[in-house]
Amino acid sequence: MRIALLGLGKMGANMARRLARHNIEVVGFNRSQEIVDELAAQRIIIPARTLSEVVAKLAAPRVVWLMLPAGVTTEEAINQLVPLLSKGDIIVDGGNSNYRDSVRRGQSLMQNEIGFMDAGTSGGIWGLENGYCLMVGATKQTVDIVSPVLKALAPAPDRGWAHVGPIGAGHYTKMIHNGIEYGMMQAYSEGFTLLHRKEEFNLDLAQITELWRHSSVVRSWLLDLTAQAFKVDETTTPGTAAPKPAQILEALSPYVEDSGEGRWTVIEAIELGVAAPVITLAVQMRFASRETTGYGYRLLSLMRKAFGGHVAPKIEKKS
Amino acid sequence: MRIALLGLGKMGANMARRLARHNIEVVGFNRSQEIVDELAAQRIIIPARTLSEVVAKLAAPRVVWLMLPAGVTTEEAINQLVPLLSKGDIIVDGGNSNYRDSVRRGQSLMQNEIGFMDAGTSGGIWGLENGYCLMVGATKQTVDIVSPVLKALAPAPDRGWAHVGPIGAGHYTKMIHNGIEYGMMQAYSEGFTLLHRKEEFNLDLAQITELWRHSSVVRSWLLDLTAQAFKVDETTTPGTAAPKPAQILEALSPYVEDSGEGRWTVIEAIELGVAAPVITLAVQMRFASRETTGYGYRLLSLMRKAFGGHVAPKIEKKS
Repeated sequence: MRIALLGLGKMGANMARRLARHNIEVVGFNRSQEIVDELAAQRIIIPARTLSEVVAKLAAPRVVWLMLPAGVTTEEAINQLVPLLSKGDIIVDGGNSNYRDSVRRGQSLMQNEIGFMDAGTSGGIWGLENGYCLMVGATKQTVDIVSPVLKALAPAPDRGWAHVGPIGAGHYTKMIHNGIEYGMMQAYSEGFTLLHRKEEFNLDLAQITELWRHSSVVRSWLLDLTAQAFKVDETTTPGTAAPKPAQILEALSPYVEDSGEGRWTVIEAIELGVAAPVITLAVQMRFASRETTGYGYRLLSLMRKAFGGHVAPKIEKKS
Repeated sequence: MRIALLGLGKMGANMARRLARHNIEVVGFNRSQEIVDELAAQRIIIPARTLSEVVAKLAAPRVVWLMLPAGVTTEEAINQLVPLLSKGDIIVDGGNSNYRDSVRRGQSLMQNEIGFMDAGTSGGIWGLENGYCLMVGATKQTVDIVSPVLKALAPAPDRGWAHVGPIGAGHYTKMIHNGIEYGMMQAYSEGFTLLHRKEEFNLDLAQITELWRHSSVVRSWLLDLTAQAFKVDETTTPGTAAPKPAQILEALSPYVEDSGEGRWTVIEAIELGVAAPVITLAVQMRFASRETTGYGYRLLSLMRKAFGGHVAPKIEKKS
């Protein structure tokens, strides 16, 4: 089987590598040319420099898999592909698009008799080795055509991918997956902070995260990754002490990004009238992490001073 | 090695079974006699009917491991043991005691030159097969004596148990572990509800929980258990359709208990001045689950009616 893959970033390039290992030919396209040349030199992709070239290198029914940033970039790629594709061809959106966009795009493509699949893809940079978890929304007919690709990307042909519902259901499921992820991460973060701040016990978070990986109720892949990040190879700098978890964290930004699915989950909860307080709060805490000016907290100090004469100590302004 | 195990409930009885498999002799004691007789008949424990008999059947330094309900029961057992034990003997509290009680008990026992270990124990009913995750607070000397027992209970001699700090640090670490567990569970619960309530996609939670177990970012042991609970063996009732997740949930209580460690985590966060909003909210949601009278919500209806004339529809009172 041969498909096209548009977008060879961190996720897309690794997916191309995984597909190549499973003998699926990939026509690769990327806005910046460097990664295209690199993957082509390694015989992982068949390079294409234009979308017309992409389409010309595929046989009907053509399958074009997008791994592009959600929003305008994905929208534009689909709009540019439509006039180049034919009846029966399929566009797969493997990115993190809002499921409402996927429903709309699926309906719009149907008018041109082009099939659509939203394939929410989880697994991050580990997917190349472990396989990707794929949440698929599409018609059964579309799934049948794309399934060899899904089976190659998944950890095994019979698990880690599923046709969860109609168009939109894949990205909806992936959105909720990410909402849960926000809540889990925040719960761990709070617990680890409570361990760190209990100075009288001088707890070693590298030890405890590793400990919890074995038979505890909170064991998870996120915990595995955290324990691994705290475990520093002393042999890389012989003779020097391994950095402590607190030092490892010092080197990271306390400003936490979000990539959309968390806030969409919160909006969905409001629109469905479903209480989702913990996921909501986890998203809000990311916003709070970015309040580097302390504007809202200064307002609290102002009010405490106004009604109670409380004077908060001035702090040195950090650059 | 031979130790005593006081409390042969669900956790204690399985721990006795695991210790027996690892050739550690267990003198077993329980308030109700039935399980003592059962385990003795299976040659898993050496039965004892009184605490004096327990102590008489051990050789110095005696190790008495408590798996008792936290609070009064554990306190009374320790008080009754002290006059029976000798200098150098050790009491291990493997239950879910508040770490402050453990610190106090450790100091009190030290005056009698009796050693103390708080061994926070995770793993639930699965510990018998998988081993238990043990978070140990004690002196090094005490750990050295008890370590063969810890190595037998843990999933392997070299992992799943750790000496995390001084007396109290074990139960503190276990308390935070459980706080994180509350947050994770609530995040999953909210996400699954958002999947369930999106009726237009008719999502199958049995399928999605199983799907997410493979290579997704939210994979965890809690997810494994949830997927397993949704997977019903159709062969048990041949010819009948397997119950759907919604039906499986219908059969369960929506009133959710807590066993203390969650609320202690919240109190600790307040006392340390550490923000832990998600864990706090997860604990509060358990309280909310018990508000079967809707008292607080009726108050909201009363106020909406008072200022805005909003009339909420009356509902049939459920018995």
